[in-house]
Amino acid sequence: MKHTISALVENKFGVLARISGLFSARGFNIDSLAVGVTEDPQVSRMTIVVNTKDERILEQIKKQLNKLIDVITVIDLTKREFIGRELVLFKVSLDKIKKTNLAKLIKRVEGKIIKTTSKEAIVELSAEQDDIKELFNKLKDAGVKELTRTGRIAISIN
Amino acid sequence: MKHTISALVENKFGVLARISGLFSARGFNIDSLAVGVTEDPQVSRMTIVVNTKDERILEQIKKQLNKLIDVITVIDLTKREFIGRELVLFKVSLDKIKKTNLAKLIKRVEGKIIKTTSKEAIVELSAEQDDIKELFNKLKDAGVKELTRTGRIAISIN
Repeated sequence: MKHTISALVENKFGVLARISGLFSARGFNIDSLAVGVTEDPQVSRMTIVVNTKDERILEQIKKQLNKLIDVITVIDLTKREFIGRELVLFKVSLDKIKKTNLAKLIKRVEGKIIKTTSKEAIVELSAEQDDIKELFNKLKDAGVKELTRTGRIAISIN
Repeated sequence: MKHTISALVENKFGVLARISGLFSARGFNIDSLAVGVTEDPQVSRMTIVVNTKDERILEQIKKQLNKLIDVITVIDLTKREFIGRELVLFKVSLDKIKKTNLAKLIKRVEGKIIKTTSKEAIVELSAEQDDIKELFNKLKDAGVKELTRTGRIAISIN
């Protein structure tokens, strides 16, 4: 099962290494991780997505996270109602597809062309993972030269 | 100076811990880090933003990154032309601001209201950091209850 974990942490060096070390020490691969400062520059928010069959070990990791001195709070959003989003940038070759056709292709998922040169276009998409997968599959035939993504961030709904 | 480093790495456990450890061992704080799988599920792309006055040490870290067995390529985008974007989700209280006014506020930077309840709205913004800062400052007075962000991702323009 996929878990989306949101942690508030002190914005200090070593915190990221310690946290990612907790997961790797138990053989957990992190699907995605995003970390950036919050409204308080002393504090960062980290969103970690892990896929696990072993819920028991994940519970242990969450407890250990909570005990780390630089960790302020840990929430497993999987147990709440939340909105998740991920940002992706695609570099699409304009050899096989024209800009107007590309614009049509990305319309349903509300993607945006943010830059074009004579040879390629940069497409931006912020969406849930299903829409990202859908667009990637559509763009594959046209030719995705490069892709970079943020990993999921998420926010609870009260 | 801010550096945006983009690395392709093997999607294995321990890679993130090793890479973040390289930075923290030298007292480098990471401004933001985003990691997620690429079009090839065996490979992840990591985007790291660091702010440093000591370019010499950063050069050493980049060399060490390149030597890590699980690191495929390392590019310092700062030396190229690139597009950077970051995704932010804001939870805004609707006590002091009405939804229609909120919609006006986020229009210039092309933010989107993606969910509303009677008490709050979730605003999504994918943009460069200056626009994110601008919107945050506008929303602050209305009341930002929570904020989560991905950190910058970036793609080179050829």
